[in-house]
Amino acid sequence: MQLKYDQSGLVPAVVSDYLTGEVLMQAYMNEAAFRKTLETGEGWYFSRSRQSLWHKGEQSGNVQIVHEVLVDCDEDCVWLRVEQKGGAACHTGFRSCFYRRVLIDDAGRITAENRLGTPVIDPDVMYGSAGP
Amino acid sequence: MQLKYDQSGLVPAVVSDYLTGEVLMQAYMNEAAFRKTLETGEGWYFSRSRQSLWHKGEQSGNVQIVHEVLVDCDEDCVWLRVEQKGGAACHTGFRSCFYRRVLIDDAGRITAENRLGTPVIDPDVMYGSAGP
Repeated sequence: MQLKYDQSGLVPAVVSDYLTGEVLMQAYMNEAAFRKTLETGEGWYFSRSRQSLWHKGEQSGNVQIVHEVLVDCDEDCVWLRVEQKGGAACHTGFRSCFYRRVLIDDAGRITAENRLGTPVIDPDVMYGSAGP
Repeated sequence: MQLKYDQSGLVPAVVSDYLTGEVLMQAYMNEAAFRKTLETGEGWYFSRSRQSLWHKGEQSGNVQIVHEVLVDCDEDCVWLRVEQKGGAACHTGFRSCFYRRVLIDDAGRITAENRLGTPVIDPDVMYGSAGP
């Protein structure tokens, strides 16, 4: 099995809650992040904004315990089933980054509304004064 | 709400079963596919290999009825909760493209094994003689 990394050396990683199936986030992995995830059993990614390896939860303590790693038919995407420590995967404090539902109205306007009520964690508490 | 398309005009789309939460596939959408999906309530994507708009299931009849469209915090990824007609999202006939589990052995070798037993549809039947 050999992942097909794109021209930036990355594959998309879908991350869902291992019990509920809720998609928590989508991130990217380079080869080092993929191997680190398999070796440590915690979620490691590649931060495109920081251009560096990213141990999810290293700062906040909200690591992801990886229960299962799957690969798709094309070997260009991975799916991680995880246990999200702290209850929130999103830097906003919501348990999922996908906290908004997309709607289109009769006039064709695309809008979004919250599907999740409120953040489960205060981001200021999650990250301290350093911010996300 | 405005999706942030990448330099190729695409965003990744995570597609999961609306009842079980199983991730069925990961594909890409351009702006036209995103709008078509919202307008028709069926899954439309952009095929990178064919470089064209792709109505999932148009050939096989196995369309995806979209129950919910979510957007992530960064507005650069969407999550579709769908009802997969025909029971198989993957061109191989498996219900999910993620039919293999990734494992790492003590020597650090990365391998994959089937987590799903057998395809639910014979691809030859699904696509006829035309192939996928």
